[in-house]
Amino acid sequence: MFGFLIYPGVEELDLVGPWEMATMWETYADGPGCVTVSQTGGPTVCAKGLKIAADHSFADCPALDYLLVPGGFAALEEARNPELVDFVAMQARQARHILSVCTGSFILEAAGLLDGRKATTHWKLLPRMREIAGVEAVEERFVRDGNVWTSAGVSAGIDLTLAFIAAVAGEEKASIVQYNAEYYPDGRVYGTAHHAQQGSAYFRGLGRA
Amino acid sequence: MFGFLIYPGVEELDLVGPWEMATMWETYADGPGCVTVSQTGGPTVCAKGLKIAADHSFADCPALDYLLVPGGFAALEEARNPELVDFVAMQARQARHILSVCTGSFILEAAGLLDGRKATTHWKLLPRMREIAGVEAVEERFVRDGNVWTSAGVSAGIDLTLAFIAAVAGEEKASIVQYNAEYYPDGRVYGTAHHAQQGSAYFRGLGRA
Repeated sequence: MFGFLIYPGVEELDLVGPWEMATMWETYADGPGCVTVSQTGGPTVCAKGLKIAADHSFADCPALDYLLVPGGFAALEEARNPELVDFVAMQARQARHILSVCTGSFILEAAGLLDGRKATTHWKLLPRMREIAGVEAVEERFVRDGNVWTSAGVSAGIDLTLAFIAAVAGEEKASIVQYNAEYYPDGRVYGTAHHAQQGSAYFRGLGRA
Repeated sequence: MFGFLIYPGVEELDLVGPWEMATMWETYADGPGCVTVSQTGGPTVCAKGLKIAADHSFADCPALDYLLVPGGFAALEEARNPELVDFVAMQARQARHILSVCTGSFILEAAGLLDGRKATTHWKLLPRMREIAGVEAVEERFVRDGNVWTSAGVSAGIDLTLAFIAAVAGEEKASIVQYNAEYYPDGRVYGTAHHAQQGSAYFRGLGRA
């Protein structure tokens, strides 16, 4: 079972990018079943106002093989929510892999899952991640350290999840997922915003001569 | 106002990829407000089981400047739903641009919006699109024909929406959206599934020597 954490203010694409890849894995390539879970179950309002309802509460959530923790600015507050942090820590004790997108990494850190590990997050929060003793912040699109996978901001969860499926189920299963989701981005980089010094190293130089 | 159509069985990422880009445009780059709308308003179950609730019903939806119609296999049935098709046709009479993702193009066609136009869809449905008299099916990631924009499957709505924002608001606004959504895909293509003859021309040859 692959669980997807939801909380008030979760960033929409952080959740749904990986959800789409994982449910394509389930549908077309023998992947595990997928469920959403939040503290109380039921409806939640996301960061940009989309209304999503979770399948399970923490209390009735089955044991998960894989757990994905999406981000959003609200993740920084949820990293101080003891019920949520305990749920992640408890699931992590028996799960085979834990993944986070964007600021979801700060929830993993609060659950004690990043000690001594490489990790990443949205470029806006890299300075804050660098301040955490025992975590090596890297400026990559995603990074795997053992069974803990963390990605850069928002859309990076799609690349993370495809790489995760390739590692767990093999390259051809990831290929089938990518084909069904038609995930062949055009790679176009617009304008100059990404050249700012605070951008993550992996994209800061894109499009420069 | 930018409206996002929801219906039972809508494909999750078809909706949320463009939603994330558009709400980043609203939040960081002076874009329009964004709302979701379905026939009755309220909760809907998406193609892969995610539960999303719409802000508006057709009856109480404001006039839209832009409307995005996502896909999913269910779109082929919704293209025969007169209330939904009438809603799209009615909004299109005063909207400045209409966009679709994946099989959402078959709803645009039912609403009379593709007559004499170039359009595209998920690679699985290209044969069916080619049978429609008066529509020129193209094998590209997305295509604009006047004020009607259609994209390939599922994830292609992200590239479509960024290109749309660049066209409507300028390249630097699209740059700010891309930077905040950290949409710099790694471009990795897994395995061989996409080499199949039925794949769309724009990706079929990727990774071949």
